[in-house]
Formats: sequence, structure tokens, C-alpha cells
Amino acid sequence: MPEVVYGEGKTDEQVCEIVDALRARSTPVLVTRLRPVERLRRLASRWPDAVVSDRAGALRVGAPREREDERTLLVICAGTSDLPVAEEAMFTAETFGLRTALACDVGVAGIHRLFAHRAAMADAAAIIVVAGMEGALAGVVAGLVSVPVIAVPTSVGYGANLGGLSALLGMMTACAPGISVVNIDNGFGAAAVAWRVLRTSRTNA
Amino acid sequence: MPEVVYGEGKTDEQVCEIVDALRARSTPVLVTRLRPVERLRRLASRWPDAVVSDRAGALRVGAPREREDERTLLVICAGTSDLPVAEEAMFTAETFGLRTALACDVGVAGIHRLFAHRAAMADAAAIIVVAGMEGALAGVVAGLVSVPVIAVPTSVGYGANLGGLSALLGMMTACAPGISVVNIDNGFGAAAVAWRVLRTSRTNA
Amino acid sequence: MPEVVYGEGKTDEQVCEIVDALRARSTPVLVTRLRPVERLRRLASRWPDAVVSDRAGALRVGAPREREDERTLLVICAGTSDLPVAEEAMFTAETFGLRTALACDVGVAGIHRLFAHRAAMADAAAIIVVAGMEGALAGVVAGLVSVPVIAVPTSVGYGANLGGLSALLGMMTACAPGISVVNIDNGFGAAAVAWRVLRTSRTNA
Amino acid sequence: MPEVVYGEGKTDEQVCEIVDALRARSTPVLVTRLRPVERLRRLASRWPDAVVSDRAGALRVGAPREREDERTLLVICAGTSDLPVAEEAMFTAETFGLRTALACDVGVAGIHRLFAHRAAMADAAAIIVVAGMEGALAGVVAGLVSVPVIAVPTSVGYGANLGGLSALLGMMTACAPGISVVNIDNGFGAAAVAWRVLRTSRTNA
Amino acid sequence: MPEVVYGEGKTDEQVCEIVDALRARSTPVLVTRLRPVERLRRLASRWPDAVVSDRAGALRVGAPREREDERTLLVICAGTSDLPVAEEAMFTAETFGLRTALACDVGVAGIHRLFAHRAAMADAAAIIVVAGMEGALAGVVAGLVSVPVIAVPTSVGYGANLGGLSALLGMMTACAPGISVVNIDNGFGAAAVAWRVLRTSRTNA
Amino acid sequence: MPEVVYGEGKTDEQVCEIVDALRARSTPVLVTRLRPVERLRRLASRWPDAVVSDRAGALRVGAPREREDERTLLVICAGTSDLPVAEEAMFTAETFGLRTALACDVGVAGIHRLFAHRAAMADAAAIIVVAGMEGALAGVVAGLVSVPVIAVPTSVGYGANLGGLSALLGMMTACAPGISVVNIDNGFGAAAVAWRVLRTSRTNA
Amino acid sequence: MPEVVYGEGKTDEQVCEIVDALRARSTPVLVTRLRPVERLRRLASRWPDAVVSDRAGALRVGAPREREDERTLLVICAGTSDLPVAEEAMFTAETFGLRTALACDVGVAGIHRLFAHRAAMADAAAIIVVAGMEGALAGVVAGLVSVPVIAVPTSVGYGANLGGLSALLGMMTACAPGISVVNIDNGFGAAAVAWRVLRTSRTNA
Amino acid sequence: MPEVVYGEGKTDEQVCEIVDALRARSTPVLVTRLRPVERLRRLASRWPDAVVSDRAGALRVGAPREREDERTLLVICAGTSDLPVAEEAMFTAETFGLRTALACDVGVAGIHRLFAHRAAMADAAAIIVVAGMEGALAGVVAGLVSVPVIAVPTSVGYGANLGGLSALLGMMTACAPGISVVNIDNGFGAAAVAWRVLRTSRTNA
Repeated sequence: MPEVVYGEGKTDEQVCEIVDALRARSTPVLVTRLRPVERLRRLASRWPDAVVSDRAGALRVGAPREREDERTLLVICAGTSDLPVAEEAMFTAETFGLRTALACDVGVAGIHRLFAHRAAMADAAAIIVVAGMEGALAGVVAGLVSVPVIAVPTSVGYGANLGGLSALLGMMTACAPGISVVNIDNGFGAAAVAWRVLRTSRTNA
Repeated sequence: MPEVVYGEGKTDEQVCEIVDALRARSTPVLVTRLRPVERLRRLASRWPDAVVSDRAGALRVGAPREREDERTLLVICAGTSDLPVAEEAMFTAETFGLRTALACDVGVAGIHRLFAHRAAMADAAAIIVVAGMEGALAGVVAGLVSVPVIAVPTSVGYGANLGGLSALLGMMTACAPGISVVNIDNGFGAAAVAWRVLRTSRTNA
Repeated sequence: MPEVVYGEGKTDEQVCEIVDALRARSTPVLVTRLRPVERLRRLASRWPDAVVSDRAGALRVGAPREREDERTLLVICAGTSDLPVAEEAMFTAETFGLRTALACDVGVAGIHRLFAHRAAMADAAAIIVVAGMEGALAGVVAGLVSVPVIAVPTSVGYGANLGGLSALLGMMTACAPGISVVNIDNGFGAAAVAWRVLRTSRTNA
Repeated sequence: MPEVVYGEGKTDEQVCEIVDALRARSTPVLVTRLRPVERLRRLASRWPDAVVSDRAGALRVGAPREREDERTLLVICAGTSDLPVAEEAMFTAETFGLRTALACDVGVAGIHRLFAHRAAMADAAAIIVVAGMEGALAGVVAGLVSVPVIAVPTSVGYGANLGGLSALLGMMTACAPGISVVNIDNGFGAAAVAWRVLRTSRTNA
Repeated sequence: MPEVVYGEGKTDEQVCEIVDALRARSTPVLVTRLRPVERLRRLASRWPDAVVSDRAGALRVGAPREREDERTLLVICAGTSDLPVAEEAMFTAETFGLRTALACDVGVAGIHRLFAHRAAMADAAAIIVVAGMEGALAGVVAGLVSVPVIAVPTSVGYGANLGGLSALLGMMTACAPGISVVNIDNGFGAAAVAWRVLRTSRTNA
Repeated sequence: MPEVVYGEGKTDEQVCEIVDALRARSTPVLVTRLRPVERLRRLASRWPDAVVSDRAGALRVGAPREREDERTLLVICAGTSDLPVAEEAMFTAETFGLRTALACDVGVAGIHRLFAHRAAMADAAAIIVVAGMEGALAGVVAGLVSVPVIAVPTSVGYGANLGGLSALLGMMTACAPGISVVNIDNGFGAAAVAWRVLRTSRTNA
Repeated sequence: MPEVVYGEGKTDEQVCEIVDALRARSTPVLVTRLRPVERLRRLASRWPDAVVSDRAGALRVGAPREREDERTLLVICAGTSDLPVAEEAMFTAETFGLRTALACDVGVAGIHRLFAHRAAMADAAAIIVVAGMEGALAGVVAGLVSVPVIAVPTSVGYGANLGGLSALLGMMTACAPGISVVNIDNGFGAAAVAWRVLRTSRTNA
Repeated sequence: MPEVVYGEGKTDEQVCEIVDALRARSTPVLVTRLRPVERLRRLASRWPDAVVSDRAGALRVGAPREREDERTLLVICAGTSDLPVAEEAMFTAETFGLRTALACDVGVAGIHRLFAHRAAMADAAAIIVVAGMEGALAGVVAGLVSVPVIAVPTSVGYGANLGGLSALLGMMTACAPGISVVNIDNGFGAAAVAWRVLRTSRTNA
């Protein structure tokens, strides 16, 4: 797996030092959680080969891993406000050499919007579901496909949402079997799970 | 609203005294949360006109209220284990003079099973959704209809379910607007909300 | 139900794009949670037919739905600090074509202040109770009327209030039967429940 | 203050040893939380001067303190299921030499039932409010009187009641100023607070 | 009890309107939770007879109630950081016509510092204990005196302190009988309890 | 995926009815959470082709799915008390046609015991980590391999373990990227995730 | 450190197998959490050299470690109900070769009872404080001595005690510096910490 | 133990007053939690003999205690973001006269990085483990050494980390016996525990 640096809570100097040390050994190096966008751009300017994703709040130094397989990792995103987490998942997955696709604004309150993506779901080798609120989307998707479903609860919401904990617990107790869950807002982690899953199938099958 | 006695935590003697005092004034009198079934039957034997629901763990002394309108209150129940709560809702609603119908085993993990009940949903004047686990069913149903949706989280589940709290929080944060929620396992309360809703329309419209 | 956009966590650009897409199909379009007031006004200035409510932090593009019935939705608000949530409920309800009335500063600590509103309660077709602190008001009101009571816990308070969770739990466990609860600070959601309730009675009765 | 032994979690032998040691020094000795009733009676039979309260699950060895003042401690109890806690408060208070009175079945859902006790409230030197569910009763009572109001949350309820924690939090955040709260189900503790309060006024005024 | 306005979450205009309405009826009027100090001073400047306490973040319009009794309400404060809450209690109590005294920097970690105040404790008619951290001070004090002990948990601390909830729970479960607890940081509420207690003894004894 | 029935909270009659209906359509049918062992055996006796696992508390009616690939799913189990959950995972996986292996008594407190299984880890196509207590094992294993790691927190422990919630949260926040988590004690769910993962690689690669 | 087996949640057969395997390598072997006493005695009867502590619910096979130093580990126990946890700590410590002493019934509500043990505290090389309720005792003791203080919260209490969590949090936030805390009811763990502490001083000083 | 002032929540004036009073009696005086760095430097400038640690956010007035023993306190720090807490522990320990060493960036996800420090671990007289995320590092270290292990959970992380509570609970339930835990981010407290431990061995052995 490519090297990854978690940017939050580190000073710019710490990030630079770590990135420089890592890229001397191998590239790409991914840095996540660089917000606000001014910080992201300031840091990116230090390396000529850095590529940024504003929405994900992440940057990559060096070219992404070469793509070894043509299967698609589908990212389904419940609402517009969940997009930053979905983008972190996609930017990470691309850095790791996976092909991604996005289906956005697909909440369970309008279940027909989900059905519009059935072809994409059928084609996907694995699906990441990004949803705040009650996280119900993960259970519905898992009931429709038999590929791995990786659920990312987000902190989008208020009140009884408890900073994403309600979505996390909801995804944990979803009745559709075969959902696995990562930490709240952890788009990066979901992509890492997907990478392990797809890599396994390349290596072992 | 007919008089209701909450049976749990009261002695048999207390229940009898209260019921006798209430039925002297008016009937029906509803007693809920009488478990196990032996207790229910023992208590029921004290009044000749008592009717019991084993599954709901409830009894009614005296005839139900006369039905004043022919609209249906639909109770949608996610799984077999949620049935006792659904039955409490139905037995209560019938005691209050409402017409009820049940759609059972309708979890979001098999969304097509829900769609099989679209006609019943279209006909209903109000819908009670009884679901443990992540409570996602309430949000999906509310996205399909425009009548009132009353959500009852149940304590069915384990682990991250937290005794029904996860379902409660999930229903609270569901993104479909217009869901209202009652306490965990509170089938009676959901029926009382439905009674207020349907009665309002009879009286006011 | 008219289209509604939740403004928090979206950029101005995202809000504009979504509103423009929706109003091309139908009006009114409601946008909630636009704070601070500068943001609200900046956004409102983009549409000539926008109407704002400073206190609710909301705007409406296009005329409200035509009022189809003359019954009143009464909003009872415990304290001055709960007013923004009450206003969100009223602005939403009016956008949806409901007639509203407000009874303010009606906490249970001065129960006589509530009784001063008994005539308004008797006239109402449904009541929304907005209260932070211990949320006791919902139970008291529900014991006085037989129309639907929709409880909105607010995050007003501190310490043991737990960001509104204490009020939510208190409303959930209120002993008056027939209260239904929506998410913390969710004035919009309460109005949506009321709309379903009143619409049902128009359509079905 | 008379000596008090908390019976739960102690063996019969430990209780006996402690009681015997204490009564050699002074009486009365109060033992609380002796349940079930068989245990209570078995223990009581060891001392000829023991008096028991089945409902409180408590016993007293030796005569109660002499009553030094004729003012009344009023115990207001929300529901039948809260009675054991109310009885613990009353039995303790009487052991400590206080005069007590009980107002039972006085929930906020039927606020008129509370008003029937206004004369008793006006006469009381202090009031203990025992209530499960949302604990709203304490706030309403405190708004009607200016004597000390001691609130005892009970674990009566289910689901969102969280074993009494919801009532505790609700009482803590009640908006009527001047409520003080003791632990869940702690009837004894409430009586001890009342004893301090009434004793203070005798000694100091 | 004098009229009290909770300042947090209200606009300056709302505070002024309410204060003016109240002082037209009677004085003093107390306004709490006015922070930062600039806001406090800006508001105080509107009334010529306003007196402020910077540390309490409170102001009083009109003269305090006349002192009717010479007994002392002792406020024991665990640490320097708890002082604002202790000051709110003292400023409130003085407004209500009570005589107060302060014992500061008296944590249980240096129990001898508490003992230095034994004379003051013996003289007090009631004691308010203000403590963050684990709240242990309330239990120790209650074991040393037999007057009422009113415990105020504060949000001072970090980590496992959980915003004061740990202190609240600790005070609730303290083994010394006869402690009553108010909400986190609620110095005002503790003074209101003390006022009820001391007033009772004046009126009734 | 084969049909699965969750046995807890269902009556024997309900389980039998559901199993009979399902096996008429296809086999195998798996029934989980049948405890105590007497219940398991009583139910198993109804079908001649039922196979039970006492430790897993599960039974299978009909032959397992044919094994389609020879890769191994390794189940690593922290302690003896976690074995029932590990067995549920293995029995489920075998029913679904996967090859399994078990490494038991491998806690992080004796890290060398884990290293003794490095060969097995290197051979595995996916790993399920079953651990109560602090759940640290999942993070250590994920740092040693690059195949998918599915973490199952268990309710084994006491006190600060909070019924498994501490392990769940610990696994969620583990710093090794690429761990996915299922519900507490959900051995079945972990096997279902593994089945999706391994099936994907067979189908797509 | 001698080998230790946690008995709860293991079958008798599992315990025997593990003990036999361990004692073949070295003695003593300690088994904790064997309750009720019948189970403890049944298991103890399998080894001729087993010694049991009924109160601790533990047994030791083989002679305790030889005592290498004469310093005392003092165990201070708040109440009678906390004794089983204190005994587990003492039985463990003795098995590990430490000299122990017990000071019992020493709650903060009667601080003079603690002072009666000042000589024992001054002599101790380390102190274990076992306390339920609010756990205040640990902070008071740590303020009086400068040797290591190991705090064990117990689950003794009810209501706001939250199964010992309140005591744990209180001990964590105690303001006396230098307290270290172990899990709820974990007498064994406290003894293990003490063993590390005292052993260190023997080895290194 | 040298005097220590907790800087957070105190005004500059309060800190100065307290420090001046303390240093008149003895030095060194340690002040912790002085952030941001501007505040730290501003305060430090008041005493000519003040020494600051930017990373720890702490200052010391007066020379550290003389080192009385040459054994090492090893501080193991999981990640770069945990460094401020580790530095607080080291700066405190040095002020108290202990010799310290640091092993940084040693998470369980790369267990080999921990093994690189085995010599340092073998040399240490006590070890402080500073770790956020799931806190697993404490258990692994305690399994490798027999000296005291003091665990400091940190608030580093997000989502299910719950502000450090998950790490705290994980460390509490770690299966390696003999770990003691201090409050979240409490580097100072861990050093105080270490001081008690090492001092004990000097004094008593």
C-alpha cells in the first residue's frame, strides 16, 4: 500500500518532513485531512509533482499506482454534504491504482434515485456507501448486490445524529448481512479496505 | 381516549383495583405489558368480558370503541421478532375503534418485499413502522407515501443496537421529512398517536 | 410536499444550483438553516421572489402553497431562546399552505401561563410543542388536548441538557399517550409531520 | 441523624452484625433495600422491636426519633409503580422524626390531579417529588410553591428512560429554579435532605 | 423570589425588553450568563441602578432584597477555576437577601485546607459546594456537617470529566446522605435552593 | 448466499416454519443463536439432515455449499471466552462453502503467540479477528498482512468493556488502515463479509 | 508474574485443562472470578494443593511465591459491599509474594475513620484504594501520602453509579496527582500493578 | 512533589499570583497547559529563571529537582500527533528529578517499529505509553516488560474516538495485567505516577 500521512494535528513542518522522508523511498505519497483549502494549496506548492483534491482536502505527491485491473469501485454518496468524505475515498482509491465511479444524491428517502444506479451497482467489484443521517443506505444497497459493501458513516447531520455515531451504530446493526463498517468520515479507510479486497482477488484467484 | 393501564411493575392486586375502578366509569379498559402469558391469562380470568392478545401481552375489558371510519391504519413490521410490538399497536388501535392491517417481514435488506405492499401503503390513512436493527425502514416508507408515518424503534437486536437506542436515533435522523417517533417498543404509544391523527381528521375536516 | 433544501454544510454555489434546478420544476422552494443572517440575505438576493425569515434562518423562493383549509396549527414555544426553532416550524408550515398561530414563553415552571392559552389549544387542529430544558411541556399539553401533539426538543440549555438529548429522552418517555417526537431543533421536521397529519384529514375524511 | 444501613449487596450476617453494633450505641437503626419481602421478614424476626415496611423494603430497629416539629413533609408520587421509592422516603423520614403526608398518582399528563393537592402543597414545609418517566412533575411543582423541592428520579419506565437517567437529567435541567435532585430511586437520600432542611430551620431560625 | 433572566442565547434587545418589563413590576431583577465582560458592561450601562459582578457574569437592576436573617450561606469552592460558578451563586444569594461567605481553594487532595474552614462550616445555616473534577468535596463536607449541602458540579476539567458530567454523577452517588445536586455550572440554581431552604425556616419554624 | 435465520427472540414454532419454508426452495439453511444447547438439539432433531455446532449455537439443514476455491479464511481468536463467536464465524463460512482455519488464544498481551501464526496469516486470503477486551488484536494483525481484515468485537469482559462497545470503538479507530468492523459478537456477519470478499475475487478477477 | 486464569465465561472443563497445563510448567496458578461459591469449591476439589478465598471467589493451586520483601501493600476498602474486590486484590497480591494489610469501612463520608489509619498509610509501600459510589476516597488518600496509589472503582451502587462507570470517571479526574486507575471491580489488576511497582524497586534500586 | 499549577481556565493574573506565592516557599514550580505559545512566552517572561517547553505548553520556574537516581523513565509515543502529551510527561518528570528517554512513532500497526526499542524497554525502570486511537500500544508493551506501565490515552483521532474516551476504555480493558491508566491527555499525571513509583523504590527498597 502506498504511504499515507494523516495531516490533521500535524504542523506544516511535520507534514513536509514526513513526506520528504517517505518520497525518498517510494511514491506516491498521499496526505489527507489538509483543511482549509489555503493550507492544502500552501503545502502542495512545495512539491512540483503534487496533485490536490480541494473537495477531499488531500494531496498526492508522485504518480498514482499503475492500474492493474479494470474493475470498478463504485462510491455511492447519500447527499451533497457527504461529498467531501466520498471524494476522500475516491482520491485515495485512485492513488492506490483503483478505478472509481461515483453515484451521488442517492438517499433512501427517494429510493427510486438509488434504482437509477442499478446498472452501475451490477458492474461494480465492490461498493463504498457514504451516508450520514441514519445510515440506512448501506443496508438497502447490501440487499441489492452480493459484492462487498463498505459503509462509511459521516458526521453530517445534527441533534440525535451525535456527530455521526447514530449512523455508525445504524450501519453496524443493519440487517443485510455482509456490510463492514469503518470509522466516521473515514473515506480514506474505506478505500484502504477496498484496496485490500480487490488486491486479494487479483493475487489469489 | 379509552382508559389504559400499564401492567409492568404493578402487582396483580394493583392492576385489578385500577381496572375495576375505571370500568365502573366507562369501557373499554386496556391493560398492556402483562407478561408472561400465564400472568395475562390469570388476570383476564377475573373479568368475564376480557379479551386477550397473547402476542401483544395485553387484555381489553369491555367491547372496543365503535368504529367511526373505514380508513385503514397500516402497521408495517420489519421482522418476526418485532411482532409483539406490532401486535401491541394493533390491539390498542382496535380497542380505540380503528381499522388495522399488517404487513410483516418487510426489512430494507429485501426492498422488493416492501414494494409488494405498495397498494396497502397507498390505501392507508396512516402508517406505523415497527423496526429494530437500524430502523431504516421508517425512512424508506416515508419516502414512498405522504400520509403520517409513526416510527416505533424496537429493542430487537444485540450489541451496537444498544437496547433499541440505535434504532431510535436512526429514525430521529432519517432524512425523509415527516416521520414522528415514539419510545422504544412503545406499540401502544404509536397507536395513540394514530388515534389522535385519525380522530382529528374526522372531527375537523 | 414542496421541495426543501437543507442549507447547512452546503456551499452557496451548491445551494443556488439546487434551488435553480428545483424552481424550474415547481415552486415554492424552501431553504432552511442559512445562518448567519448575512448568508441568508446574500443568498436571498439571488432570486427576486425570495422571502426570508431572519429568526428562522430560512428563505422561500416563490409563493407559498395555497391554503386549503382554515384550521390552525398551534406552535407552543417554551422560552425566548427556543424561538428560532419555533419560527422554522412556522415558516415551513406557512410555505406548505398551513395556517399557524404562536403561543410563546409558556414553560411548565409557570403553568398558569400555559392555561392562558387554553382557548387557542382547543381551537387547534394539531399542536407543535417546542421546548428545551426538560421538555416537560409536551407531556402537560398532551394531557390537556386530544389532537396530535408533535414535540420538538431544542438544544437550548447547558450541562445535563446534553445538547438537547435530555429533552429528547424526556419527551420520548412522557407519560401522556400520543406524543410523537422529531429530532433536536428540527422545526422543519415538525411542520412536515403536521402537514402530513392535516393533509390526511383533508384527503381522507 | 439516626444510623442507616444499606442492605443490598450485604449478606444477612453482615447486616445483623452491623445492626447489633449500631443499636448498642443508639437507636433507631434503619436498614434499607431489603428485598424480596421474605428477606425483609427473615431479618426483622431477629430483633423484637423491629418494624418493617413491605413496600419500602426497609426495617427499623428501635423507636423512631421523637417528633420535634409539626410541619409536614409532603411526598408527591407520580404513579403507582413509583410507590416503593416514595415509601422508602416516608419510612425514612418518620424514622428521623418528621411528619409525612402522601399525594399519589399525580402525573403531569393529568395536571388537574396535581391541582387537587394544592392545599396540601401550601401546607408543606418541604416537598419530595418522586417520578419516573420524564420527571416533569418536579418542575411543575416547583413552579407552584416556594418551599424546598427535592426531586427523586425513579427507574420506572423502559426504552429511552435509560434506567432512570432520562428522569434524572430532566429534573436537573428543569427550568423552575430551586429544585435539588438526588440519585435514581434514592427515597432514603431525599428524606435525608429533607431532614437536614427541616432540622436547620428548627435549630437556626 | 426576585425575577431572574437567563442571558445566554438571548439578544441584547430581548434582554432589555424583558428586564424593562420586569422592573416595572418589581425589583431587583437579576440577569445571569452575560459574557464576555464587554457584553455585561454594555448591557449594565442601560440602567443607572445596575450593579455587575464581572466574575459571575451577572448584573442586578435595583437594590437586593432586604436581609431578613443573619445566618450565613457558606459557599465552598474547590479551585480557582471554579470561582465564576461560586460567584454566580453568591451574587444570586445576595440579590435574594441572603448573607454569604466564601471558602476557596479547598480541594479534597489537600484535606487539611478544608479543615481550616471548620469554624465557618459550623456557623453556616446551609452550604453550597462548588467543585469540578470528581466532585468528591461534596461528600466530604456532608460527612462533617448536618446542615443542608447543595452540590454544584462544574465543567472545569478535561477528558474523562465529560464536560462536568463525571462530577455530577459523582455527587449523585456520594455516600454521605443528604446531599442534593443541581445542574452543571448552575451557581444560580444552588442559590435558589438555598433561598428556599432558609426562607422555609424563617417562615415555618 | 444461503438463507440464514436468526434464532434468538423467535419461538421454536416460528423457527421451524421459517426453516421449512426456506428449505423447500433451497438448501442449506443456517440457523444461528440457538441457545442453550438443549434448545439447539431439540430443534435439530426435527430435520434428519441437520448438523449442529454446540459451541456456535447454530445448526445447518442440508449440505453446505460446494467449495469453489481452495484459499483459506483464517479466524484468529484472542481468548478462550471468545471462541463461541469464532465458531459462529467458522460454521457460517463452511456452510457458505469457504475453507477455514483457526488460530486461538492469540492476545496482544503475548505478542509472540501471534507471531507463531505468521505462516497461516501469510497463506490466508482473508482474516477474521475475533477479540473482546480492547480489540487491539485487529490493528496488530492488519499491520502484518495486506489481505482484508474483518474485525469482530466481542462482549467478553466486564466493567469498562461496556458490553463490547469499547472493543468496537477501539477497532473502529485502529490506526492500521483497511480494517472493517461488524457488530459485537456478530461472527455470522463477519463470515458474510468474507464470503462477499472471496466470491468477488472468484467472479471478477 | 505467576500464571493467572480468568474463570468467568469459561466452562469447568476449560478451566481445568488450562490450569493443568500451566501447573505442569510452574506454580502457583491463580484462578479468579469463580462464582458462586459452589463452583469455586467444586473446582478446588480437583487439586489437592488448592487454596480458596470464598470472598474473593478465587483459588490458588500451589504455594504462593516466596515473599522477597517485608514492605506492606495496604488495601483500603470503602465499604462492606466492596470487600469482594478488595479480597481479590489481597489474595492475588499474596499469591504473587507480597505482604498485605486491609483497612476496611473507610468512606469519605466519615473522614475521621480514614485518619484512624494514618499510621498504616505511612508504613505502606503502595496503597490500593477500592471504592464504589463516587470514588472520592482515592483522591483523599493520594493527598495524604506520596507512595503510589492504585484506584479500583467498583460496581457497588445503583442509579447514577452506572455500573461503576461514575466511580471510574471520578477517579480518573481526581485532582490529587499520581493516582492510577484500573478497570471496574478489577482487584486482580490492581494487585498486578502493585506487583510491578514493588518488584521494580527491589530489582532496580 | 514540586508544586504544580494547571494553567488552563486561569487568567494570567491568577497564574502569576499563584506562582509567586509558591516560589516564595520552594522551587521549582511547574505550570502546565499554557497555550497558545504566545501565552506561554508572555507568562515565562515574568520570571528570569523560567524555562519553557513549547511542545508541552509548560514552563518551570526554578531549577529542576536534583536527580537522585540514574534509572530511566521511558516514554513511548504512538504518533507524531501525540507528542505534545508525551512532552508534557517528560518535562514534568524532568522537573521532578527523573531521567527520561523518548521512543516516538511506535504504533501497533507497525509492530516491528516497537521491537526496535526492546533494549530501551529492557533498561527502563518504568514506562509511560502515550497513545490515541485505540490505545492498543499499552497492552502490547505491558506484555513485553514487567516494570510498571502507565497508560495515557490521548484525544488524538476523530469520530468513534470520542475525544479520547475510546482509547481510555481500551487501555482499561487491555488484557495484559498490570497497566494503570490516567486521564485523557494527562501527561503530567502520568509523570506524577512515575515519580511516586520510582521514589518509592528509592525510599523503601
